[in-house]
Amino acid sequence: MISTGTRNLQHSMEKIIEQLKSILGDSGVLTGEDISIRSAGWGLSDNIAAKAILRPQSTEEVSHVLKMCHTANQTIVTHGGLTGLVRGSFSRENDIILSLERMNRIEEIDEINRTMTIQAGAVLQTVQETAETANLMFPLDLGARGSCTIGGNIATNAGGIRVIRYGMTRDLVSGLEAVLADGTIVSSLNKMIKNNSGYDLKQLFIGSEGTLGIVTRAVLRLQEQPKSQNTAFAAINSFGAVIAFLKLMHRELGGNLNAFEIMWRDFYRLVTTPPAKSQPPFSEEYPFYVLVESLGTDQVKDTEQFENALQQAITQSLLADAIITNSRSERNKLWQMRDDVGQLFRYGPVIIFDVSLAISDMEAYVDDVRRQLNDRWPGNHCFVFGHLGDGNLHIVVAPGIDDVKVRREIEKIVYSPLKAIGGSISAEHGVGIDKKPYLHHSRSEMEIDLMRRIKQALDPKNILNPGKIFD
Amino acid sequence: MISTGTRNLQHSMEKIIEQLKSILGDSGVLTGEDISIRSAGWGLSDNIAAKAILRPQSTEEVSHVLKMCHTANQTIVTHGGLTGLVRGSFSRENDIILSLERMNRIEEIDEINRTMTIQAGAVLQTVQETAETANLMFPLDLGARGSCTIGGNIATNAGGIRVIRYGMTRDLVSGLEAVLADGTIVSSLNKMIKNNSGYDLKQLFIGSEGTLGIVTRAVLRLQEQPKSQNTAFAAINSFGAVIAFLKLMHRELGGNLNAFEIMWRDFYRLVTTPPAKSQPPFSEEYPFYVLVESLGTDQVKDTEQFENALQQAITQSLLADAIITNSRSERNKLWQMRDDVGQLFRYGPVIIFDVSLAISDMEAYVDDVRRQLNDRWPGNHCFVFGHLGDGNLHIVVAPGIDDVKVRREIEKIVYSPLKAIGGSISAEHGVGIDKKPYLHHSRSEMEIDLMRRIKQALDPKNILNPGKIFD
Repeated sequence: MISTGTRNLQHSMEKIIEQLKSILGDSGVLTGEDISIRSAGWGLSDNIAAKAILRPQSTEEVSHVLKMCHTANQTIVTHGGLTGLVRGSFSRENDIILSLERMNRIEEIDEINRTMTIQAGAVLQTVQETAETANLMFPLDLGARGSCTIGGNIATNAGGIRVIRYGMTRDLVSGLEAVLADGTIVSSLNKMIKNNSGYDLKQLFIGSEGTLGIVTRAVLRLQEQPKSQNTAFAAINSFGAVIAFLKLMHRELGGNLNAFEIMWRDFYRLVTTPPAKSQPPFSEEYPFYVLVESLGTDQVKDTEQFENALQQAITQSLLADAIITNSRSERNKLWQMRDDVGQLFRYGPVIIFDVSLAISDMEAYVDDVRRQLNDRWPGNHCFVFGHLGDGNLHIVVAPGIDDVKVRREIEKIVYSPLKAIGGSISAEHGVGIDKKPYLHHSRSEMEIDLMRRIKQALDPKNILNPGKIFD
Repeated sequence: MISTGTRNLQHSMEKIIEQLKSILGDSGVLTGEDISIRSAGWGLSDNIAAKAILRPQSTEEVSHVLKMCHTANQTIVTHGGLTGLVRGSFSRENDIILSLERMNRIEEIDEINRTMTIQAGAVLQTVQETAETANLMFPLDLGARGSCTIGGNIATNAGGIRVIRYGMTRDLVSGLEAVLADGTIVSSLNKMIKNNSGYDLKQLFIGSEGTLGIVTRAVLRLQEQPKSQNTAFAAINSFGAVIAFLKLMHRELGGNLNAFEIMWRDFYRLVTTPPAKSQPPFSEEYPFYVLVESLGTDQVKDTEQFENALQQAITQSLLADAIITNSRSERNKLWQMRDDVGQLFRYGPVIIFDVSLAISDMEAYVDDVRRQLNDRWPGNHCFVFGHLGDGNLHIVVAPGIDDVKVRREIEKIVYSPLKAIGGSISAEHGVGIDKKPYLHHSRSEMEIDLMRRIKQALDPKNILNPGKIFD
């Protein structure tokens, strides 16, 4: 009996693969070793498991495939650039992967209305560079720019280093096209800034991590390229001064404030100590360091404005030390220091957190987390940095022990305090699988129930990215 | 039989009113004349029809009421400030109205994290003024500020005059609380700029015109108050020059560009001719007039920047004439001219349109609409103005005939061309009842189907604002 069952399963699987090949062509369907040689994603040691990897070339192909899978109750996991950090693209042997790697065309750039229409598999950096050729700018920017896709950015509502000025991915998308679980193509390729003709359907798909539909195309909003850039790096003696400095920069730079990044001393020390290549601009004696940047339209005037703001901060004794630059090479050095996250792995396996909380709660929260970690694992390393202007901290813990129980304990220490202070377990990385057990720290039962209602309405058979965000 | 039926109905209605009074108190339930003396809304000649007007004082009361109505299949229409323009708050004798007029508290202003938590019945102007007392700013601004409520702004995703800089209501709300049709309270009172812990539920309610839930509270994002303001008014000889001028201002003012309003000659003439009080800054000979404004952080430097940008536009022959001011009284005069929409009623009943479309399509579109109107009704008046920087035009037609057939014909002329060019029948006013017949000009069958799926998931009995947006 068992062997007959296995044969039937084998047979039905072969039949599905055959049907998929008839839709996508042989090169559109990968199986066997072509799957297992692929990495499961950035920072993961395992390779992909799946029944097949599909590589459609058009929205219509995606629709055909989904219709078929829907009828067959076949689960689908969508793949972009696989740079996520919460195992949001994880698949099992019985899943089929739909990769958008062959749907990466830039379809149109509209210079007058400042939009770009793309297929969702387009790589972020390609989009940025294409905008530049038209003297325009796609403001989304993050470390994974060279491999992450716009589809993935949309699925996770990616943030990055310019949110304070330009917003998250949600704010940079004016329209999108998605294929629903049953294969229905919903094209909402709106190009307009304002459109209140019925529900804003794109909002459903942005940030829903591939669980409500597969985003196939999008209209992106572009901006004029800035013509000036000013960057400063400051050492600060108290968190109160950091908060006051942020407010001062908001007030003095207005719409030009582009980044306000914080490093706690531990992170600063990490990225300015060999083998890290960056030289420390200041000594390690200060508790906080801030990288602040403005983008504007006139280098001379904006430098004056920026220096004037810094001068006010110094006069008000907010800064212990500061350097300021508008040279590209100096600026790059500062950002390379900030972005040298490879150093985080120096002390063995790490757990990467991405929380957000009110700025006024941050100091006490970080102190509390750190105290608990030190009490429990005296030899641990904990690094704290992030996008302070967005209320977003990255906390990276290297406990010195690679053990799943320890991981759970640390997660509890980091996530548990967030509920009482209205913080979020995920500022910009999403929930995926890794943060699923902690979703209730940030969202109520009623909220999660409503998410389930939406999921049920759009994907009643639960075939799209099953097991992600909530059960 | 009929009279028994009526008696039963009468009886069941009395029973409902009794139950409602037991929840809300006598003053919480208006009936009879207390309803019929109330106007149905701004610009409407009829008064309200409804079974009762409920005036809850807390989210819990809203929840109790909805639970009751849900069980009784009782339809509910939510009322804010009744300043909408698409009959989105229209009710019939059998509907119950839930007015948020007694839920207008400012609950908290958080100066450090720059948020304000309010009840949805709070009036926009009160919110603006409260923000000012903390040296902060709630950027949403529109003509109805003195009577429209934040709940209504959220329900319609209101736009207004600062969208180009600060975005629509959607961009200004960081969290909200809503009561679903069945009485479930979903509190997503998130205060953070970044929060990707599961679906962003607030997006469902923003812009859904009261059809998916009743918004009871919200967390608003505040901004630092600008410290400089510069305003210019320009006459322009061609639409190509208007587009080039907008691009130049985006490039030269960057994040400081706050408004870019256009008037076609007909509107300019209307608001500068008696009985209008404004004096015309220039002659009426030009086809286009633009009001442009920047908000910044340093009056001296920003005036220099603004003047320099204007000078470039003059050098490039984009402007036929221009005046520039940073005096409050001069600025107010320019805005009073722009805002003198009362003049629109000078030639009898009007039809007000609020469309959005690509800037590159605007000139041909307006010419085409105007040509059709003139061919059909030679004596008509048509006024065109709007938020050009947002791609949003208001077209106001006074045909000289008050006839529903004529109205339908004019609507067809204005809306029909939008489908081919991807425009929207509603940029910022919503759909309500008035634009429902034209929704298919802007949205596909698949999109409308998906809206219905969402509606069905959240309000399966269709008791919330029935008959609005789509059938």
